[in-house]
Amino acid sequence: MSLFEKHQETILRAVKANKERGFYAHYPENPKAYGEEAPAAGLHAFQVSMNTDFSELLQQQPIRFEGEEVSPYLQTGLGIRYPVFADKVVVARSKEAFAEWRKISVQERAGILVESLDRMRNRFFEIAHATQHTTGQSFMMSFQASGPHAADRALEAVAMGFEELTRFPAETIWDKPMGKFNITLRKTWKPVPKGISLVIGCSTFPTWNTVPGMYASLITGNPVIIKPHPKAVLPIAIVVAELQKVLAEHHLNPNICQLAVDSTKFPIAKEFVHHPDVKLIDYTGNSVFGNWLEAQQILGKEVFTEKAGVNPVVIDSTNDLKAMCDNLAFSVSLYAGQMCTAPQNFFVPATGIQTAEGHKTYDEVVEALVSAIKGIAEHPKMGPGVLAALQNDATADRVKAVAASAKKVLLGSNSILNEEFTEARTATPLVMEVDAADKAAYEKELFGPIALIIKTADTKMSVQLAKELTSVHGAISCGVYCTDTALCEQIADEMAEIFVPVSFNLTGPIYLNQHAAFSDFHVTGGNAAGNASFTDPNYVNRRFVWVGQRYPVQ
Amino acid sequence: MSLFEKHQETILRAVKANKERGFYAHYPENPKAYGEEAPAAGLHAFQVSMNTDFSELLQQQPIRFEGEEVSPYLQTGLGIRYPVFADKVVVARSKEAFAEWRKISVQERAGILVESLDRMRNRFFEIAHATQHTTGQSFMMSFQASGPHAADRALEAVAMGFEELTRFPAETIWDKPMGKFNITLRKTWKPVPKGISLVIGCSTFPTWNTVPGMYASLITGNPVIIKPHPKAVLPIAIVVAELQKVLAEHHLNPNICQLAVDSTKFPIAKEFVHHPDVKLIDYTGNSVFGNWLEAQQILGKEVFTEKAGVNPVVIDSTNDLKAMCDNLAFSVSLYAGQMCTAPQNFFVPATGIQTAEGHKTYDEVVEALVSAIKGIAEHPKMGPGVLAALQNDATADRVKAVAASAKKVLLGSNSILNEEFTEARTATPLVMEVDAADKAAYEKELFGPIALIIKTADTKMSVQLAKELTSVHGAISCGVYCTDTALCEQIADEMAEIFVPVSFNLTGPIYLNQHAAFSDFHVTGGNAAGNASFTDPNYVNRRFVWVGQRYPVQ
Repeated sequence: MSLFEKHQETILRAVKANKERGFYAHYPENPKAYGEEAPAAGLHAFQVSMNTDFSELLQQQPIRFEGEEVSPYLQTGLGIRYPVFADKVVVARSKEAFAEWRKISVQERAGILVESLDRMRNRFFEIAHATQHTTGQSFMMSFQASGPHAADRALEAVAMGFEELTRFPAETIWDKPMGKFNITLRKTWKPVPKGISLVIGCSTFPTWNTVPGMYASLITGNPVIIKPHPKAVLPIAIVVAELQKVLAEHHLNPNICQLAVDSTKFPIAKEFVHHPDVKLIDYTGNSVFGNWLEAQQILGKEVFTEKAGVNPVVIDSTNDLKAMCDNLAFSVSLYAGQMCTAPQNFFVPATGIQTAEGHKTYDEVVEALVSAIKGIAEHPKMGPGVLAALQNDATADRVKAVAASAKKVLLGSNSILNEEFTEARTATPLVMEVDAADKAAYEKELFGPIALIIKTADTKMSVQLAKELTSVHGAISCGVYCTDTALCEQIADEMAEIFVPVSFNLTGPIYLNQHAAFSDFHVTGGNAAGNASFTDPNYVNRRFVWVGQRYPVQ
Repeated sequence: MSLFEKHQETILRAVKANKERGFYAHYPENPKAYGEEAPAAGLHAFQVSMNTDFSELLQQQPIRFEGEEVSPYLQTGLGIRYPVFADKVVVARSKEAFAEWRKISVQERAGILVESLDRMRNRFFEIAHATQHTTGQSFMMSFQASGPHAADRALEAVAMGFEELTRFPAETIWDKPMGKFNITLRKTWKPVPKGISLVIGCSTFPTWNTVPGMYASLITGNPVIIKPHPKAVLPIAIVVAELQKVLAEHHLNPNICQLAVDSTKFPIAKEFVHHPDVKLIDYTGNSVFGNWLEAQQILGKEVFTEKAGVNPVVIDSTNDLKAMCDNLAFSVSLYAGQMCTAPQNFFVPATGIQTAEGHKTYDEVVEALVSAIKGIAEHPKMGPGVLAALQNDATADRVKAVAASAKKVLLGSNSILNEEFTEARTATPLVMEVDAADKAAYEKELFGPIALIIKTADTKMSVQLAKELTSVHGAISCGVYCTDTALCEQIADEMAEIFVPVSFNLTGPIYLNQHAAFSDFHVTGGNAAGNASFTDPNYVNRRFVWVGQRYPVQ
């Protein structure tokens, strides 16, 4: 049985899910991945990998091994070193592997890729620990985001690619009546992959943000080079290793997908970008480098970016003030604001808002929100789990610097004790009030646990400012609380015009930070927060070219 | 009955044709368009439009009227003047119309657009004369290319847009089991149009090359500004006027699609390009301006180009030398090489080729090809009809300049008499021999009736050179004559790798110049000849953004 036959049902179900947009999660459970033994086995595997050289990759002859990952929970190095290769060697191997991979049918490619996700699943617990101790995410988020949710997004990319690559017939007989005779041609169409694909990872979501581009490029026939963030390698290294093993088992060149580890001191992303054979670039990270990458498009490279955004929340009215504040407080606190979807700017009218319990003044609303944030931060059980740890010192420093220059701090940022990891780098949210007129204070992304409450004249001004900021600086998410259905529709329409997705009146355990595969197009690709979306048709179609051939039929 | 209901069958059939790629022509005939009266009525309509101000557009308050079209057949001005508007006024009106158009459902938009094609059909004969006397095409080509074939390509863009815009549900209930309860959200997705679309026309195919971008932008909800080539306005002016009338009849702002005529002396394309509200740019024309336009992508504009290419023909072997030469001679001669798909570089091995009648030397092959080209040029009936007229003096001058600097002319270019239009600007093909080593002589597009025969060592070298040139300079078409099936496959694969479509062994009345709607992706978009294709999914998907909204369900 071919791998396609083995996984056909999964692939076709995922294609259907893509079309119907109604699935919440797709990747089927299995006992090995989720069984009783799995948690302990995963922890053990992670622990034994520490202070060793990562030897699972099938890439030959590294020039040396190096690694610089530091656990945000332990604040000590993981001691894992990865094989390092010269960028020219990596590109040359990729080119060689390309010749093989582009000839493989889409069915075979899909089978191999889904098989690799199957193998990845067996290591979800190990990947979770690896993610926790590189990104600073809580264990729960590490498991979900780097495990099943990442696999979902990878599968979604495979499914979208599969659908697009098979949407036109491979060939047809074209028959044109000319009066007394017909012209008959056999026409064929091939989706031709563009070339070497470079996927540049980030330090906070090393698999979730990497696998969509990786699998989208692979399903469309392109070889992939993954350049992880040097501080968050292990989670994606495991994924690449599993894929390489599947490739090798099927007598394919494992260099079809390579890991290219660099260091903070000697970054190599630009070397790859400059290489003429590198045609596709996926990137998650800061806007400065992202904008530079986008400019490479004039050299004929396709660039897919997810950059910084300034995510707004507009508070107009609510049926449940407490539920609203609890929900928003959680969104602000989750992984200490280190999600690209975390809200930053909260627009509250100076005149207060209508609630089910009657009118609440501005101060009452702010007080309720601050109190809810404080409640999570100070909750001895909930706080450490929700806030998790800061990935790096730069974020900790940013919080301090912003606090120092703040005009009005409503809630100071503190470290909290994580009893499991007493050395964890933690910070509770800093909440500040800024005036609507002081745009410089809130127009930029302040990555980390920082929330700004912006006092506006009214909701009209709130929406106006949210639009103004996001149309210039972009946004990946936007929350609106409003009980007036007509006004909601109007705001949805106005934000859609600048390509910002809105979540309305979220309460309970669903948050505007969460973007799900098979239903949410993560990042619209239409505003300054990024030029691409997980996983719309463009996300795969830009990776290959339809080329037709024509042959006469006798 | 809504226009969607009226045209539903046509739209859905076109969607199906797009998927199946097996239709040769789509737009249904009707008696009014093709009836006995139609030819005379069309000629009359064209004749009365000469020396008048074009008054059919519904755009108000022009600042003046001007026009500079010159018939390549009469070599006198047509005397038609078009309303001229300030670019800022055009953009402001487009923005105003956008607010209306983006709210119209895709069904209504599709209905209106197909209705406009229905009206255009009634004027095919008039458009044919307008095309002939602006582009220099023969009447037959003018009719086909600017009439039914253009309408086909427009309909294809509408169909592809319709399919993409309706491929995801407008909304769904997303239900996630959480154990003891479910999270239930209503999720909606809207395809949001990107903004004002600028379509820059060319002088040789004023409707065929304009309507795909125009209709692709319109179906996806974007307002359109058409900036025609100042020397070829009338054909597209008629199309725009018909669309504006349909819009007005349905109480919609006719400025949803505007014609913005400029002059050779005061070009305004760049003014539009620089305007921040212009988000989409379609362009057919020279590579210098096309490359500049593509660079505007770093400002967040989507740019769709069709530029110059160097189209190769590789001659390896043939079953029918005469049929091959007749076919190629026709391709070279058709509209005097002024098609973007016309072949230019003919690679012939110095060792000769195998044919059904045995081995033919290089000289015999060249002689046969030159003789076939000469045969068409000197044929008193066929010559003028096939060669038609040169659109402008620059092309005539180019032929002379290239001939003057040629090392070895195999067939000189001459004017020929067109008995119907004795003043026609005509030129027969210039055929030259160049050595394979003299790349400078053949690496650029020599637009017009110019064919180069390049003597190579063997087919391997021919393919190598064809690849080398097209990978740098691009190609829109490529012809290969080869009786070895395995070698054909290999060449197809090698050319596909650089995104060049190949037509094999064409003989009889089908030519590599011809690209048909619903089956040929015209320009692959993968090489230097252009970054977009008529009409693959990217062609419409890059014109809008999917934006999702989420609402809790109680």
